[in-house]
Amino acid sequence: MPEFLELLPPIDALNRLLDALNFQPQAEEIGTQDALGRVLLQPAVARYPLPSFPRTTVDGFAVRAADTHGASESLPAYLVLSGEVPMGATPEFSISRGECALIHTGGMLPDGTDAVVMVEHTQSARQEEIEILRAVAVGENVIKIGEDVAAGQEVIPAGTPLRPSEIGGLMALGITRLSVSRQPKIGIISSGDEVIPPDSQLHPGQVRDVNAYTLSALVQAAGGIPLRYGIIPDKAEAMFAAASRALQECDLVIITAGSSASTRDLTSRVVNQLGSPGVLVHGVNVRPGKPTILAVCDGKPVIGLPGNPVSALVIASLFVVPVVEALQGLTRFQPKASIKAQLNLNLSSQAGREDWVPVHLLPGDQTARVPFQADPIFGKSNLIFTLVRADGLIRIPPAATGLSNGEIVDVYLF
Amino acid sequence: MPEFLELLPPIDALNRLLDALNFQPQAEEIGTQDALGRVLLQPAVARYPLPSFPRTTVDGFAVRAADTHGASESLPAYLVLSGEVPMGATPEFSISRGECALIHTGGMLPDGTDAVVMVEHTQSARQEEIEILRAVAVGENVIKIGEDVAAGQEVIPAGTPLRPSEIGGLMALGITRLSVSRQPKIGIISSGDEVIPPDSQLHPGQVRDVNAYTLSALVQAAGGIPLRYGIIPDKAEAMFAAASRALQECDLVIITAGSSASTRDLTSRVVNQLGSPGVLVHGVNVRPGKPTILAVCDGKPVIGLPGNPVSALVIASLFVVPVVEALQGLTRFQPKASIKAQLNLNLSSQAGREDWVPVHLLPGDQTARVPFQADPIFGKSNLIFTLVRADGLIRIPPAATGLSNGEIVDVYLF
Repeated sequence: MPEFLELLPPIDALNRLLDALNFQPQAEEIGTQDALGRVLLQPAVARYPLPSFPRTTVDGFAVRAADTHGASESLPAYLVLSGEVPMGATPEFSISRGECALIHTGGMLPDGTDAVVMVEHTQSARQEEIEILRAVAVGENVIKIGEDVAAGQEVIPAGTPLRPSEIGGLMALGITRLSVSRQPKIGIISSGDEVIPPDSQLHPGQVRDVNAYTLSALVQAAGGIPLRYGIIPDKAEAMFAAASRALQECDLVIITAGSSASTRDLTSRVVNQLGSPGVLVHGVNVRPGKPTILAVCDGKPVIGLPGNPVSALVIASLFVVPVVEALQGLTRFQPKASIKAQLNLNLSSQAGREDWVPVHLLPGDQTARVPFQADPIFGKSNLIFTLVRADGLIRIPPAATGLSNGEIVDVYLF
Repeated sequence: MPEFLELLPPIDALNRLLDALNFQPQAEEIGTQDALGRVLLQPAVARYPLPSFPRTTVDGFAVRAADTHGASESLPAYLVLSGEVPMGATPEFSISRGECALIHTGGMLPDGTDAVVMVEHTQSARQEEIEILRAVAVGENVIKIGEDVAAGQEVIPAGTPLRPSEIGGLMALGITRLSVSRQPKIGIISSGDEVIPPDSQLHPGQVRDVNAYTLSALVQAAGGIPLRYGIIPDKAEAMFAAASRALQECDLVIITAGSSASTRDLTSRVVNQLGSPGVLVHGVNVRPGKPTILAVCDGKPVIGLPGNPVSALVIASLFVVPVVEALQGLTRFQPKASIKAQLNLNLSSQAGREDWVPVHLLPGDQTARVPFQADPIFGKSNLIFTLVRADGLIRIPPAATGLSNGEIVDVYLF
């Protein structure tokens, strides 16, 4: 099989694809309140400082710090209470030497004050007089103007995916509309003479389409808009017609090949006809998923996945998800979280090949260093429910010839 | 402050709330293709076996295993090629002793065959004759009827959140409609005389509403539908009116209190008037977020969060997210993934209290055991951009009095 002469490791194969593409996400303006998970295209810049006035972080008394110098429980300072700071407004008084004002968390410091004494460190003395039991330094319990964010500061760089915290930060600055990248359209083509839509009556020899739906859900979770182009028979003309239309309408086209060698070859021939330069990678040194095809056709990425649903989903998480992210302009570093677990048997692997093994998490035993056991799920490679039974995947790196019983592994949930 | 006499650890506080509620998620029928992230309410049961016919997992020749007994490269077995199995249909022939049929991955075994020899282990001999170079056992390279899923088998239990793999598995079984839990409605009330909507012109002493939007995004990510009830002044009648309406219309009500002690007391008084039993927990032994209120009013959960945006978001991830999940009937065990990182300084903490510290991830140095450093983000507790600058949170458990420089910690991304 000539396509497998050169088998790249997955990361090299992915980089070959990404390097051949020139990602230019298109902008879309949306409300910040609707921006969860979207990717910022222009850096967010603060027009005003945050906070915009000196604010207390505690309940207590706004003072001139110098007036509290040396104050202690045994030798309090006595200050005249000159007013109460209203919430949400400028105090209509100022504080002179020897005076203080009642202030609530979030309130604005009156003119003349430079610190706040917490209410717990004060006592009411005579009427209109407050005993200060602890000295404060200038700026203590106060957030200065611009201490959170300075005016003109870039607060969120372009390429950042927006979490709840970014949405809140933008709202704090009054940034209620944003330029984010348009969600990329991802065309999904299923193929196979034996494949029928899930709602059809099954006849002997037929199977229902699984890949179009697992891939749609994965694309959706990664921020793309899945568009399904139906199930195409294993014929070059039909597949070329569907793929051409998808390539025109979408930002990325995914073709799940039939699972036999002949239909995989069909996919690569069709992809090469779609546009230049065509197939960049045919065959990746990974299990499952060796027959993966990575291509660029007239500036757009095209990915051919194995037909086996387990392989298709594992490989899509390695190749489709990063491309969908790059199409959105995602540049911020994205570490991948995992669960540490203790492998409960030996796993062998071929040196030079990267393996992804589905595992189920079990509670670890009392004496273990980590709370979970990783229990590999075996079975013939195209049992569809393998991934339903699995909590995540573990990776056997190319340099290893396997993993040992008892070893601590990273389980990547999916 | 009487509310803080008893400070429960967060997990005990959460359990007190969950135990006082009787979660009965309401069902909604939706298409399986739209079910990503939704929670299954009825177990999914296979009506038919999967696969529904004996299928080959390889390209090759369907044989009677007995006919290959003893076959090897030096002593091949010779079988007569009697036909080719069509994809997606029942072979219209059967195979007798001494015969074989060409078959493609996913094809249906013809009557009379019980194994498949991979094409790599065969050679074309004379016309219509195949040399078998390796013996196969009965069932080799074949998935039997029901080997993936048996008819009548429960394939996905109730309470499971649906991932791409579950959606694919359901499609494979022809289950295209599902009973999932209705997305819970989460009422969100902001309060504070100093708080204004994000799109309003800011006057001195005022701040824009942050919490309503961070909480909406968090609720959305957890599967709920956020409904915002506006910004309520710090007055009992106004807050009671808004909270009563929200309680009637929603499955959970969240009130972010003003940040001063007096407005926190107001929240707890209003919550106690809303319905019985009222406040169950007032004050949690956690930093940030001590003034948290957990309540049940006439069978529905009500959560009072601190007004400080950092505290509100940290506490919401501890209390709001699990309640939103429970409201959806989520019962399946959900381990939380993290990133291992090396703490780059000493952190102190009060014994008995659980602390959550925002950290930024930095690349680890070459000699470190893990690829990241966790760099704690300090600053006054209500700098809104603390969480924008952070990649995640680390937990200092109640039993510890701190964490040491160089220690390996779990960073929970948010």
